[in-house]
Amino acid sequence: MITLTAAQLIAGQPSRAGSAPFQGVNPRTRTRLDPVFVNATADEIDRAVIAAQAAYEQTRRFSAHRIADFLDRVADEIEALGDQLLEVADTETGLGIPRLTGERGRTTGQLRKFGALLREGSYVDAIIDPAQPDRKPLPRVDIRRMLFPIGPVAVFSASNFPFAFSVAGGDTASAFAAGCPVVVKAHPSHPATSELFAHAVNRAIEAADFPAGFFSLVQGDAIDVGQALVKQPGIMAVAFTGSLRGGRALFDSAAQRPVPIPVYAEMGSINPLVVLLDALAQRGDQIAQGLVNSVTLGAGQFCTNPGLVFLVDGLHTDDFVQTVTAKMAEAVPGVLLNANVERGLALVVDQTLAQPDVELLTGGGTVEGVPYCYTNTVMQTTSAAFRANPDLQHEHFGPVTLIVRCASEADLLTTLDVLQGNLTASLHATAGEIDAAAPLLDRLREKVGRVIWNDFPTGVEVGHAMQHGGPYPATTAPHTTSVGMTAIRRFLRPVAFQDVPDALLPDALKDANPLGIWRTVDDQLTRAPLG
Amino acid sequence: MITLTAAQLIAGQPSRAGSAPFQGVNPRTRTRLDPVFVNATADEIDRAVIAAQAAYEQTRRFSAHRIADFLDRVADEIEALGDQLLEVADTETGLGIPRLTGERGRTTGQLRKFGALLREGSYVDAIIDPAQPDRKPLPRVDIRRMLFPIGPVAVFSASNFPFAFSVAGGDTASAFAAGCPVVVKAHPSHPATSELFAHAVNRAIEAADFPAGFFSLVQGDAIDVGQALVKQPGIMAVAFTGSLRGGRALFDSAAQRPVPIPVYAEMGSINPLVVLLDALAQRGDQIAQGLVNSVTLGAGQFCTNPGLVFLVDGLHTDDFVQTVTAKMAEAVPGVLLNANVERGLALVVDQTLAQPDVELLTGGGTVEGVPYCYTNTVMQTTSAAFRANPDLQHEHFGPVTLIVRCASEADLLTTLDVLQGNLTASLHATAGEIDAAAPLLDRLREKVGRVIWNDFPTGVEVGHAMQHGGPYPATTAPHTTSVGMTAIRRFLRPVAFQDVPDALLPDALKDANPLGIWRTVDDQLTRAPLG
Repeated sequence: MITLTAAQLIAGQPSRAGSAPFQGVNPRTRTRLDPVFVNATADEIDRAVIAAQAAYEQTRRFSAHRIADFLDRVADEIEALGDQLLEVADTETGLGIPRLTGERGRTTGQLRKFGALLREGSYVDAIIDPAQPDRKPLPRVDIRRMLFPIGPVAVFSASNFPFAFSVAGGDTASAFAAGCPVVVKAHPSHPATSELFAHAVNRAIEAADFPAGFFSLVQGDAIDVGQALVKQPGIMAVAFTGSLRGGRALFDSAAQRPVPIPVYAEMGSINPLVVLLDALAQRGDQIAQGLVNSVTLGAGQFCTNPGLVFLVDGLHTDDFVQTVTAKMAEAVPGVLLNANVERGLALVVDQTLAQPDVELLTGGGTVEGVPYCYTNTVMQTTSAAFRANPDLQHEHFGPVTLIVRCASEADLLTTLDVLQGNLTASLHATAGEIDAAAPLLDRLREKVGRVIWNDFPTGVEVGHAMQHGGPYPATTAPHTTSVGMTAIRRFLRPVAFQDVPDALLPDALKDANPLGIWRTVDDQLTRAPLG
Repeated sequence: MITLTAAQLIAGQPSRAGSAPFQGVNPRTRTRLDPVFVNATADEIDRAVIAAQAAYEQTRRFSAHRIADFLDRVADEIEALGDQLLEVADTETGLGIPRLTGERGRTTGQLRKFGALLREGSYVDAIIDPAQPDRKPLPRVDIRRMLFPIGPVAVFSASNFPFAFSVAGGDTASAFAAGCPVVVKAHPSHPATSELFAHAVNRAIEAADFPAGFFSLVQGDAIDVGQALVKQPGIMAVAFTGSLRGGRALFDSAAQRPVPIPVYAEMGSINPLVVLLDALAQRGDQIAQGLVNSVTLGAGQFCTNPGLVFLVDGLHTDDFVQTVTAKMAEAVPGVLLNANVERGLALVVDQTLAQPDVELLTGGGTVEGVPYCYTNTVMQTTSAAFRANPDLQHEHFGPVTLIVRCASEADLLTTLDVLQGNLTASLHATAGEIDAAAPLLDRLREKVGRVIWNDFPTGVEVGHAMQHGGPYPATTAPHTTSVGMTAIRRFLRPVAFQDVPDALLPDALKDANPLGIWRTVDDQLTRAPLG
């Protein structure tokens, strides 16, 4: 059992210089939880970043294998936290032990997958254009480039994934994998869970003999803690998962720095789902059940929650809407993460219901007598109303979906045109509807980071091919992903070496290819050494 | 011979709605050149972007081979402009026919190289994680991702490369290669050259049966033309080559848009050059000559101009400084591009000379009676002064370099620590100095996009491995390059497909791999078809 310090953990050392207190809250009982944490001070944030810079001077030279071993160790230390982690997290988030157990597996799994990526080694994207001394009119110099870490990274934890998108989640894992020290700003709704994770990381740092400044944890529920971190000149990139408002505020601050830095913010998404007529006819009930499961999973608190359903009017459309409505009304509403989520959700549903041509089919209110809970909610509108009103594309972060009724497939295609950026889009169709689906898929592809066929967007596979991103407002950096192995690229930048002697080249670029990695040599992929 | 319209070319059609005139100027004679151009209006800019959006709906679906053929045709049409292009450009820029002939070859060469990249096809970075229906505890879905174009791009031309970084230069070539329509804001100091290039592009568009809106040219010497273009909601990315002030202004505007977009600005760089003692002893004169050639090439108007020279005090250091100074004084100062360059250069050299501990060794003034010309200039300062004063890292855009005298290699290493971001760093050393060079190279690598051994930074090879970029203020996007084949990545973003039927997948992701490209399948690079 770990005894919580309720302090910031600056390069492994507890620090509690601040005086502005905050506490976690049990969302099932609305009771405040001990211990009482305090907001990090500007000085503590400075110290964390300065320690990260010092650590970076070592870790930027560490071999990929050494970092891989460290990532494995972090995963081991998370597992070693045992039931304490699950119980503390369940008390702070109300997400339940089964879900948290699964999320822990995902979190340790992605750390180990980044380890495997590093051991394979080709992620440094080595490209070599060998010299051509006899080229006319001018000889060609030898140019070799590869990716290097960018420096200390600030990671902002999400409320809804206390493990997988938090202290040692995907952002931290990919920054670590790149060789970048991380300063985490924990989410204020699970400070104790965050501290447990921080101890696990610090134990791995000690075991792997990494510099202590490779990781620091700062806590706080005030906006200025995060702002101070982003403004600190030693921070070279920011990763964030959360609301559009929060992400945009950090993006704006980072862009206004004397030296601007990238902000990889994964923010609002309403994840349109399209169901074609034949699919509705052949398996309407199955799709309805899948949709309700996906909307209500984790009380709808997923960035991939399908918050928007496009239907074409036909023989079975009303039945489908009734089935979805009935199943949503029947399902027991889940516990929301915190008071802010509940308040924000009630506000934005009320705003949507106040728009012209929006009809409430079920739900639409908080649950009497139950803390932090909102009824499973279905609203409906017309394609014309949706096209005319961008306010119908606001995210409802909770168990809420908005059905958009289209008169025809042509009307549907026109309506998809006004969609803003999203993380995902899902299309349900039968084999006989492939031709009808093609232009829809093509249109959706322009709007999102991931297109899904006959399935639901919740459940994001952590693999090499995963793209968890999308055009604004889904993210501030649509060319990047926050899930999957290519997430490491956010924290790397290329450097080219011109005519540098082999002895001074990094291993990945040496003639002999001592790492045995794939390299692009004269535009040909090869693992062979240079002639 | 092409007759100039002196109009904007919106989707191939001349438009001259504006009334604010501007003209090119012959920098050799300071005489205004005909015809008189006008600033594009906000309406013209809107029309150009709307046409680009319409074109994008077609070109985003074009095959890589079709775009490759188009790029070849653009190169052919540029060559078909013949001597008219060289003569008009020489009159507008004073760069001279030999230099412009070389730059034309580079410009057509890079268009054709992007064509070759497209035909090879692997640039789409296809990654496939096949389904694992039997995986426990949950089956794995099939996920496949690749890169797609991001949409219409605004390109801002540079003054100093009227061909290679202008209307059909590297930014336009790489955006075209990605399938993205381009609206170019031409540089006001070579409007006629820009129009000639635009005609070449438009002829290629016609010949290749591309949509006319794939390319538009807008002209202007007022800041609001560029600002209106960046603020136009249909623009999805911006590429810029020019001054720190100009690039930062566009970056700020783009970041403040309701939907922020990336700005790939390549801006100020002073390109530190380090000469170690043994190299000085063994080939000091040769290095001095190379340095002077590099500083005075094109009147020093290169983003890779070596504007900063670090020397360690030793037996030959004073001799070297004297040699450099004498050679700089002897060399005939070149013609500067325009009045702004001359004025700006005089101002910033005066500012530098007003700093403590800065000594003028030669030059430091405009050339009496010669228009747009500044004396070849050498200044000197101490390592302590350099460390203490960030104002000594301002770019002098012209034939100017600042020598920084260091007491020892240790002093040098400490001094390099305060360097801001740069495009390049060069290190001159002998085989016997490899050990001394290692920590210096390691330090420089953190500050730049390209490290050069025993050579000079001017002359940027256009190849697969080139990295022309670097930390701010060299660029606003250090993870990207504006020269070389990977420049295409700035205009692409990944999209993943989950369980999508083969018939609906793009060719690059189909089971059979009909394009025969390299793909990462289950983390293994292969050209083989699936299963």
